Order: sequence, then structure tokens, then C-alpha cells
Amino acid sequence: MLITLRDSDIAKWVEAACYFLSSEHDRDLASLVEEAVDNIRGAQHEDGYINTYYTVVEPGKRWTNISWSHELYDAGHLLEAALAHYEYTHSMRMLGPLLKYVHHIRTVFGLDEDQKAGYPGHQEIELALLKTYESIGDASLLELANYLIEERGQRRPEGHYFDVEAAARGEPPNPGPAPRDTPRYAYHQADRPVREIEEIEGHSVRAMYWMTAVAALARLTKDRSLLVAAETLWGSTTKRKMYVTGGIGAVATWEGFGPDYYLPNETGYLETCAAIGLVLFAYQMLLIGPYNNDYADVLELVLHNAVLVGVSLDGKRFFYDNPPATIGKHTERSAFFEVSCCPANVARLLGSLGKYVYTHGPGDTIHVNLYISSALQVPLSDGKTAKVVLEANGPWLGGAKVEGISQEDHDCANVDIDLHAHVTLRIDFTYNVRLVYPHPLDLDNRGCAAIARGAFIYCAETIDNAHIHDLRAIRLVQPLEVEESVDSDSFDKWGLHPVILTVNALLVQQTEDRLAQKGVRLKLIPMFMWANRGKSDMRVWLPIITSDVTGEDDIL
Amino acid sequence: MLITLRDSDIAKWVEAACYFLSSEHDRDLASLVEEAVDNIRGAQHEDGYINTYYTVVEPGKRWTNISWSHELYDAGHLLEAALAHYEYTHSMRMLGPLLKYVHHIRTVFGLDEDQKAGYPGHQEIELALLKTYESIGDASLLELANYLIEERGQRRPEGHYFDVEAAARGEPPNPGPAPRDTPRYAYHQADRPVREIEEIEGHSVRAMYWMTAVAALARLTKDRSLLVAAETLWGSTTKRKMYVTGGIGAVATWEGFGPDYYLPNETGYLETCAAIGLVLFAYQMLLIGPYNNDYADVLELVLHNAVLVGVSLDGKRFFYDNPPATIGKHTERSAFFEVSCCPANVARLLGSLGKYVYTHGPGDTIHVNLYISSALQVPLSDGKTAKVVLEANGPWLGGAKVEGISQEDHDCANVDIDLHAHVTLRIDFTYNVRLVYPHPLDLDNRGCAAIARGAFIYCAETIDNAHIHDLRAIRLVQPLEVEESVDSDSFDKWGLHPVILTVNALLVQQTEDRLAQKGVRLKLIPMFMWANRGKSDMRVWLPIITSDVTGEDDIL
Repeated sequence: MLITLRDSDIAKWVEAACYFLSSEHDRDLASLVEEAVDNIRGAQHEDGYINTYYTVVEPGKRWTNISWSHELYDAGHLLEAALAHYEYTHSMRMLGPLLKYVHHIRTVFGLDEDQKAGYPGHQEIELALLKTYESIGDASLLELANYLIEERGQRRPEGHYFDVEAAARGEPPNPGPAPRDTPRYAYHQADRPVREIEEIEGHSVRAMYWMTAVAALARLTKDRSLLVAAETLWGSTTKRKMYVTGGIGAVATWEGFGPDYYLPNETGYLETCAAIGLVLFAYQMLLIGPYNNDYADVLELVLHNAVLVGVSLDGKRFFYDNPPATIGKHTERSAFFEVSCCPANVARLLGSLGKYVYTHGPGDTIHVNLYISSALQVPLSDGKTAKVVLEANGPWLGGAKVEGISQEDHDCANVDIDLHAHVTLRIDFTYNVRLVYPHPLDLDNRGCAAIARGAFIYCAETIDNAHIHDLRAIRLVQPLEVEESVDSDSFDKWGLHPVILTVNALLVQQTEDRLAQKGVRLKLIPMFMWANRGKSDMRVWLPIITSDVTGEDDIL
Repeated sequence: MLITLRDSDIAKWVEAACYFLSSEHDRDLASLVEEAVDNIRGAQHEDGYINTYYTVVEPGKRWTNISWSHELYDAGHLLEAALAHYEYTHSMRMLGPLLKYVHHIRTVFGLDEDQKAGYPGHQEIELALLKTYESIGDASLLELANYLIEERGQRRPEGHYFDVEAAARGEPPNPGPAPRDTPRYAYHQADRPVREIEEIEGHSVRAMYWMTAVAALARLTKDRSLLVAAETLWGSTTKRKMYVTGGIGAVATWEGFGPDYYLPNETGYLETCAAIGLVLFAYQMLLIGPYNNDYADVLELVLHNAVLVGVSLDGKRFFYDNPPATIGKHTERSAFFEVSCCPANVARLLGSLGKYVYTHGPGDTIHVNLYISSALQVPLSDGKTAKVVLEANGPWLGGAKVEGISQEDHDCANVDIDLHAHVTLRIDFTYNVRLVYPHPLDLDNRGCAAIARGAFIYCAETIDNAHIHDLRAIRLVQPLEVEESVDSDSFDKWGLHPVILTVNALLVQQTEDRLAQKGVRLKLIPMFMWANRGKSDMRVWLPIITSDVTGEDDIL
């Protein structure tokens, strides 16, 4: 099979490899990374430019189609990889060339007369520039990011930049797929300047990478109106357009957002990369507002469900999209995708997972976002370093111990810690099974409930319920009788012994011309673990009835 | 604008024009038809072949890609047009050349060694051949149709015909879009021979044209097992895969069928042409079993809803797909489509509407399928002709009078008439408002009801309900209080004064962090009339609650 990779795929692989190498050395992997770095260095032009497509396939066409090519997106991922390489090796072998490339980009794009007033069709470079700026302090990176974010969606006398660019190529404008009535270029979040946008729209990966950068820029520049924009679009994303699994992207046609509360199951897109983008966005919001539990709650939900479901338990097979229900598809993950953005993206997220566990807030406080066992060294304002060790009982059992800190306030939901003293804090909590109900405008899930425990959203998978031919025939009965048990068998192959749930339910059966029902036991597993044991169907939202419904005329 | 038309688009226009000319002469239209006939005659090759694409764009490539080209489909539509032209003019000017073309096709395709064992990727020619055979009695047409229907999906030692054909073009096999787990070529209904297929799958227009031909062949050849196949797939289509509006095609990706009872609203495809295909299929089933009310009921439902909704009240704008709900799309019909199959298809159906009103059954009986005022001359078995006049009170008011026949059995649902006597039959019936509930496995419409009156399915359109911002917030309340009234105003521009419905409903409102509800009046119109008065949203299925639900904790 001929495999075509973008520059960004290589970049994400290098980035992920550097994260893993930082915690555990591997000579072969390190040598492969350096080989990739050599290739990237070798691909650089005299003026700093690096892009294999415009070097080999379409030379001379540089910067003629930044609205639809991934030229600046590739540059962003290369920069993130270079930063990870620098932080791992403390060598400038990759970051040096990338900074040269960025400075070249800065000469090409801007508002001067000899520059192009453009910005990328697929956002990514903005967040890469800000991340690199925060690490190495080169103010020109901040300036370029600021320009790209502020210029996006501006109306210039000569017209929208993407139209101008299309005209220069002799092509008609192509504002991309979107519902008939949305503004032009809403697919790219480029219809208006960011402060004028009130609803998250268009391609969801583009949107999340962009919001990550917008939130970061608001924090770094303390720009109040930009912060309001980030908060507005955080609300739009997570309160009205996010699935119960933390996934986003209701519409497959444009791999992106639908209207508020439109969360269809079987046709939902919920791209793994979009979930990763939402983790990045949540993290930036946490850095701004560590006391806002919303951010940590979404971060935890998305990581444990919408992200993890994208990769098989053996780490070798992937889902690109993750609809929260299938019918008769008997789905399995794929080992390869033509557009292979998600696998390498999962790898780099998991490789950098540590940074999401705590947030280091103002006034020498840290905030525990995820109960994942870990150790942390926190630089304090007085020049000292606090060492914190978190021992969590894991995602299935509640409870955690935080050592090396003193405690002022130990509300579990908001562990706010003074780092100057030294005590041990035991946090007792248990995970209870919760029923989640849909919003009244979410008609696709009307009369249904989802089941959650701890950080996990559960699902029914046919492979566990062979006696149930069609999961749509299940009726949960309220009040729900749930039995929790540790399953030491089903996922033992992967070293996982999750808490699974068994509930009493009714099964609707069509016999001749009438409907009947019979009692059944239904097994539920954490949603992210489905599709690992062979072809199967799954369903997150399940119809629920009250126990006094018995007749045929009732809504079954 | 450059407009590209297929041969079939011209053919369907000629066919429709001939139908309308048969009932009302128009010199300009007749002259345009003859001009088109001249062009078609002029495009014919020496050997009989007619196809502009393979004459002008890809000469020399005839019959190299019948799985994906529309070469045989175009031939079928040309033949149907020629038949309509012959029946209107009694001249062979178009039918003569087309019969020559069909005889040429017969030499190319078949099981002889020097023939191609192929059949079309898009069915249509089969039904055209059988229709023409029934009109002019040329047995070679029946033979060719029989071959094409029987050969479809056969497994030959050299492989599936579409694979063989792709290999000859030097291309990899392309079985078309379909869910991961369906059989190959299910998109084309060509995965297995028809008698082995138990579930209707794939592209819905292809499927309906095919079933029309299968049912016709079963009737003409009195082939019992083929009839069973037609009945099986009639059940699959209408009992488990048809929307409440009579539309079919749940999945836009392949413009076709989804799993049983999977009937999503906003993403549903419900192509106008597929509904027309279902009318053709229902009509063929009626010819086989005029006593089976199912067939006439589906015919009436589909015609009054799924077909009519595809065209605006002024006849100038169209919907290609007809999902039974929209959110924030503020949809309007289009005046033109790049693939413009639907508009001409609606025209030819409406031009030939008369034939669907009655079915002439065995034993000199006729069956009234649609209460549409009309007159009919029925040839009787004793050589005489019965004249029947039906005066209906129209689709809004019940009641009809049938004159010129005697009556044996006047159950309204099944008017079975002896044509040898002569009396007047008055049929009294009223149209009552009915609530329709979804199947228990149709989770997309769980907790909802649709409202019907007579042949019409009703919908709520935002343009009539300006006080309701989002139709998803409506809750019908059971028992429903419905007020029926004749609307002499809203559609008067088009000469239509429909019976509209007003119901009491609740509106769910989100105020700060809690949900509230208030009583509202909701106006409902026949679904086919929506999207004629400006940009608007609509919804057919509406959530319904019982009147004792009042608290916030109840499912609103």
C-alpha cells in the first residue's frame, strides 16, 4: 500500500516520540527521531521555508492557497514538534530551523504593503506560536500569533482574504461546506473577527485549535474582550453543542458543529481530533480560571471518553469518528486512515498527559484536575520548589492521597492548596452511578438516559449482550437497579479490570402484530472500551420508562 | 450558467410534455417536442445506438462502464419518452428509432459467448421495456427485461459483472457507498439475485425502479417466486424503512436506505425521485393485488406528501431531498439542480396521474385508489365499454360520488364494483385528525407524534408560528385539542384553501438556569405546502406529553 503522509503527520509523530522519550529513554526511537530531524533540516530552503508538498509536488505555488492547503497548519505542527524536541534534547537542531521558518512566514504575512494579509484555512500555527513563545520568550512569535488571530475574518476593502486568494488563482470563491444559511467561511471560523462570533460553527478541529490559541492569547495579553470571546465560545461549545461523551461535531458533511442541542447519534461525527482540540481548549481556560470547575470537568469527561474511544486498547487501531450509537454496522476500528491525523494526535496527547493533571494557579496554589497518580515539582514565588505526590486509587475506585502540601480547603470538587506547608491530605470520595438526561431541545435523545460512573460514560455493547439482537429494543426502568462489579475477565488481555454495571431492563419484542416485553439483564461497560473484542454494535443513550408502565398503550 | 443535461433529462421532459399534450393541445409545446424528437433521431448511429455522452465526450467507450455510467438508464428513459410520444401522436417517429436502439442493446447484452453478461448500474430500462411491451406487444422487449432482471446479482465463474467490467477498464472494483458491513454492490441491489434478497438496501431510486420492474415481470410472467420477492421487498420498504410522510432514503451518504426503523429527521434524504419510484412500485403491486389496501394506502400517502413536497406550489422550484424536519436552516426550494432528475420526474408523474386513480382488476371490476375527480372508460370482457365518472369533494372535505356503475360492496376502504350494471354510488366519509406514533425501535422519534388528516401529513412551519423561535420546544398535550378551519388566505395566491389545524400546546422555555413552560397555540399545515412563503423551518414529528405532566422533573 502506498502511504501518503503530510508534513504534519511526521511532525506529530516526532512530537509524541519526544514526549515519551522525555520520561523513558529508547535508543531506537531516539535515533528515528534524529533521522526525521535530519530529513526536516534537509528539506529546508535557503530562505527558511519548509514544506515537502510545495517543494516536490507544486513548486512555485507557495502561499497561493492557504485557505484550503495545510501549508501553515503543517508549519504549526512542525513548530510544536521542534519545541518538544528542544524540551527533550535541549538542542536547537530542530527548533533553530523552525524559528528561521517562522521568521520567514512573518515576512510573508502581515498588513504591510508588500505582505499578504492572510491567515490559515486550518488553524494550528497560532497555538504553536504561543506555546513556543511561552517556552522560549521570543516576542516575534507572540506578534505573529496576534496578527493571525486578529486578522482572521476581518473585512478588507479588497474583499475576504480567501476570496482574494481564490481570484488570484483564477478560481471561484470556495467558502466550504456549511448549512445553507450560515455566514460564508463559517466552516473556517473566518466569517467575522473573533469578538463578533457568538456561536461556535464549522469544522470542529479547526474551531478547537483556534479557540485554544484565542484563550492563550487572551491570557498572555490580558485582553479582556478577547477573554470574553473565549468564554462565549466555550459556553457555546460545551453547554449547547457537546455530546454526553464529551465529543463534538454533530454533522459529518462538514466534520463540524450543527445547531444548538442538535446531537444525533448514528450520524454524529465526534472526530477524535476534535475531542483532543477540546482538551487543549479546556486546558487554556483552566490556566485562565482554575477555580472554575467547568473547565476541569469537561477536561476529565473528554479525556476519559471522547478521546480514549478513538484508540483501541492495544493502541494499534483507531476510530476517526465516534458516533455514540451504531445499528447493524458491527463496527471495528481501522489500522490506517488515508487522512491520518487522529492516531498521531492521540499519541502526542497521551505523551503529554502529565501537564493536565494539575494547574498551577496564582498565589502559589495548585489545582488537581485529574485524579491520576503522579508527582509534581512546583516552582514557588519565593524561589523554592514544592514537591507534590498524588496517589489516586484509579479511575474505578474513588479516593486519593495528596502528599507534600498543606490544605486550606478540601472540597473534593475544588482542591485548593497552599504549597508552603507540608502535610498529607487524604481525599475520600466514591464513584456513584449517575443517570444523565438530555436537554429538552435534544429531541434525538428524548425519553432516554445515559449512565455515568466517575469519569466514565457507560454504553451497552452487543458483544456483552448476545441475547439482545437490537439495542434499540432495550428499555431501562426507573428506579434503576444497578449492580456494580469488577470485571476481571473481559479486558484482562489488556491488563484492565474495569467496574462494569448490570441493570435490569425490559426488552420490547414484536411478536406477530403485537408488541410484548420481557425482563432482561443488560451489561454496560465504559464507553471507551467498546469495539475491542470483535465486530459489535453499541449505544450510549438508552430509552427509559418508569416502572408503572405496563400496558401496550404506554410509550415503550 | 452552463447547464449540463443528461439524455434522460431531455427524455423525461419529452415524456411529460406528451402526457400534458394528450389532454390539452399546445402548439408551441408540441413543436418543441418534435424538435427534440428530430434531435434524438439525428443523434442515432447506423447500428441504432443513441447516447450523446458516448458520442461526443467519450466516443469509443460505449458499454465499458454500465455499472457507473447511466448509459442503459438513459436508454430506458428515452424508451419511456418514445412510448409516451407514440401514445400521444400515434406516430413511430420516436418509438421506431428507440425500438431499433433496444434491438441493438439486445445484441450486446446476454449470455451468448459474444455478448456481455451485464446489467445496468442504475436500473430503469427494465421497467421501460416492460411498459412498452405491455403497450405494443413486442416479445423481444419482455425477453430483454427478463434477462436483465434475472441476471442481476448472479455469481458467474469470471466474477461479478461490475468487477469484470472495472478490471477491463484497468480500474479497481468500486462497489459504491454503503455501510461497512453490507454485501458488496448492495448500493446497486446487485449483490445477489433478486429472489435471495430479503431487505431493501442501497440507493433508493435504483431500488424502486428495479422493484417496479420486478413486480411487473412477476405479473406478466405469472412467476410465483418473483412475486414473493416483490412482496418481501414491498414489506421491507413500506413497513420498516418508510417515513411517516411516505418518503424513503434515511441515509444521505448513499442516497438510500438505512437499517430497519432508522428514520432520522434532519439528516434524512427522502429524495423526491425515490418517492416517485415508490408510487411506480405501489402501482405495480396494485395491478397484482388490487384487493390489498396496503398498496393503495401507500400510493395515496406518498403522492400527497413525499412527492408533492418536492415541488413548490407555483411549480417552479424544487427540493431534491425532503428531510421531515429542519433546524435553523430557513430552507427554500431551488430553481435548478446540477443533477436535475427530480423536476422532470415530478412533471411526468403528474402528467400521468390519471392512471393511478383507478385500478382495473380481474372480473371487470375497478378499484378506486384515489378520490380525485375524473372520468374513465373501462373496456369490459364482453367487448363493451363501461364509463365511470368520479366526483370527489376534494382532498380537504370527505365524500365522493361514483356514477355509471353498480355497486356490490361499498366499504369505503375497498370499493369493489361490478361494471355491468348502471347506478350511482354515493360514498360518505369524513376526514378525521389522527395522531400517528412511531415504532418502538424508531428512537429518533421517541416520545413524539405526527398529525394526519385525510391523505395529508401535517407539519408545523415557523412562518405560521412566529411566536415559537424553535419548533423543538413545542410539546403537544394529550388529549389533543384540535381546531380545524379552512384557510382562505395563506395559500390563496396559488388558489389553494386547505384545511389547517390549530392545537393547544406547551412551549418549553429556558429562563436562566431553570426550565419553564407556557401555553401556546400552534398552527399546522399540510406538509407538502411548506417552504412556499419565504425562508422557514418545519417539523413533522412533535414531542407529546400527557396533560398531567406539570413538574419540572417530568419529561418535557
